[in-house]
Amino acid sequence: MRIHHVGVAVEDLEAAIELYTKSFGAQLTHRASNDELKAAFLAAGAAEVELLEPVGEDSPVGKFLARRGPGLHHIAVAVPDIDQAMAEARAGGLEMIDQEPRIGLHGTRIAFIHPRSVGGVLTELVEA
Amino acid sequence: MRIHHVGVAVEDLEAAIELYTKSFGAQLTHRASNDELKAAFLAAGAAEVELLEPVGEDSPVGKFLARRGPGLHHIAVAVPDIDQAMAEARAGGLEMIDQEPRIGLHGTRIAFIHPRSVGGVLTELVEA
Repeated sequence: MRIHHVGVAVEDLEAAIELYTKSFGAQLTHRASNDELKAAFLAAGAAEVELLEPVGEDSPVGKFLARRGPGLHHIAVAVPDIDQAMAEARAGGLEMIDQEPRIGLHGTRIAFIHPRSVGGVLTELVEA
Repeated sequence: MRIHHVGVAVEDLEAAIELYTKSFGAQLTHRASNDELKAAFLAAGAAEVELLEPVGEDSPVGKFLARRGPGLHHIAVAVPDIDQAMAEARAGGLEMIDQEPRIGLHGTRIAFIHPRSVGGVLTELVEA
């Protein structure tokens, strides 16, 4: 098991980038966005912190913020082969949110596992 | 910035260890406990996953479980010198929960920063 990144839901992406870079010496490595969120990735040792600001209240991260407030959102686990990882997860009784892999913000294939299968932890598989 | 570990609040430590080792190939590296919790550490690349089961409903993790349910609890950042890290955190306007470092479950000095200073993320400094 290797932690690929830890996702954090934030209300203000620029303020969060400033907090992590100034307070913890994190380095901004890249930014990405899609129609549901704006993201920034910060180097944190071998893993990353992924800061996520929602675009719109109806987006998944927007709903998370409305329900729980800002804070830890998900953990991403690096896997060498996502098809195999998804097959193993299903065989182990885990419920996938994504039935097929999709392209994530790093440009590689990802899929989310439902938090109710993982003790309340939204868990992302990242092919890396 | 280096992620030292990610803390996860769980209701049943043994079930959680089985989930992470079977589903994600994590390796149990050590166990620790004090009068407020039982913990297990799992290797996850250069970082660790720390599974936390509370002892008693009035313990900090017990209250967290009652309020939010199981799931992501905190993130720990490795620092070379915790006195310096705490001084810098205070100078940057962050509010410490622990006013003095205390010995954590790894036997090294730790201190927690209040989540309201870090965008809702309970953040631990670990001397490592």
